Amino acid sequence: MKIRPIIEKDRPAVLEVIHLTGMFTKEEERVAAEVIDVCLAKPGQQDYVVVVIENEQGAIVGYMCYGPTPMTEGVVDLYWMAVHPGKHRQGYGKALIQWLEKDVHKKTGRLIVIETSSRDKYATTRNFYQRLGYVENARIRDFYRPGDDLLIYCKYLKPEGA
Amino acid sequence: MKIRPIIEKDRPAVLEVIHLTGMFTKEEERVAAEVIDVCLAKPGQQDYVVVVIENEQGAIVGYMCYGPTPMTEGVVDLYWMAVHPGKHRQGYGKALIQWLEKDVHKKTGRLIVIETSSRDKYATTRNFYQRLGYVENARIRDFYRPGDDLLIYCKYLKPEGA
Repeated sequence: MKIRPIIEKDRPAVLEVIHLTGMFTKEEERVAAEVIDVCLAKPGQQDYVVVVIENEQGAIVGYMCYGPTPMTEGVVDLYWMAVHPGKHRQGYGKALIQWLEKDVHKKTGRLIVIETSSRDKYATTRNFYQRLGYVENARIRDFYRPGDDLLIYCKYLKPEGA
Repeated sequence: MKIRPIIEKDRPAVLEVIHLTGMFTKEEERVAAEVIDVCLAKPGQQDYVVVVIENEQGAIVGYMCYGPTPMTEGVVDLYWMAVHPGKHRQGYGKALIQWLEKDVHKKTGRLIVIETSSRDKYATTRNFYQRLGYVENARIRDFYRPGDDLLIYCKYLKPEGA
């Protein structure tokens, strides 16, 4: 597998992966596409980082979008992540998170924040983050909609050598 | 006192009030100004609402900026609020919050969210929100910077007639 910054020709495959997961609302898909387009328009000039992950055959099997949390020092938000639903449990998601943590560490980030939903359909997502050391730090009841809480997962990175 | 949408000529007075509070970092002031400029450029066409509050003499004594929280149904974020430091404890802040709640209610919003800081200098701010029925729902340790936690205050509005 290989992780690299997104380029223009990846766009349809990434949007397809996002859609196929079935985990995002129409509005979330629209915003995800918008952020990808902003990154493609001015690569390297955005605060956001968008990377894709390829399998051995060079097919796009996942993507991730993260960036600094505004008005914080050293906090990075994992805004979007998706792995093709037919390619789960093959280490792609874990590889993406490891890339994220390495990059945040390199940029002297201290804290990674992930917002997700309490809905049953996200149980696998929540377990995935928990297995990788992310801890539920906060919950806002009925945030996304009635019955759908916001969960905030955090991982505090250890400073170099700690 | 009078609360009304911001207009171009209010800009310097509002930025002055924001600055005089001493509660905002340079970056926060910059972003607050940016949002005001976006609102002034296309009044009524933005998701954000920016209002000012005048005293009896017609001087700007405070301002507030709020808007729908992206990807939620019926949640409104109070992004910025400031009252001239020489005009505290005269009901301006409370009047702004009452305006906010009335407007959110009118637009069938369910929940108002306010993010603030755990630092000592914000103790008065936190007491102010608490007195008006906002409850600390979440805390993310060391969020803004080490030793400076994020606090999320929430108020769930009751439906009409409840």
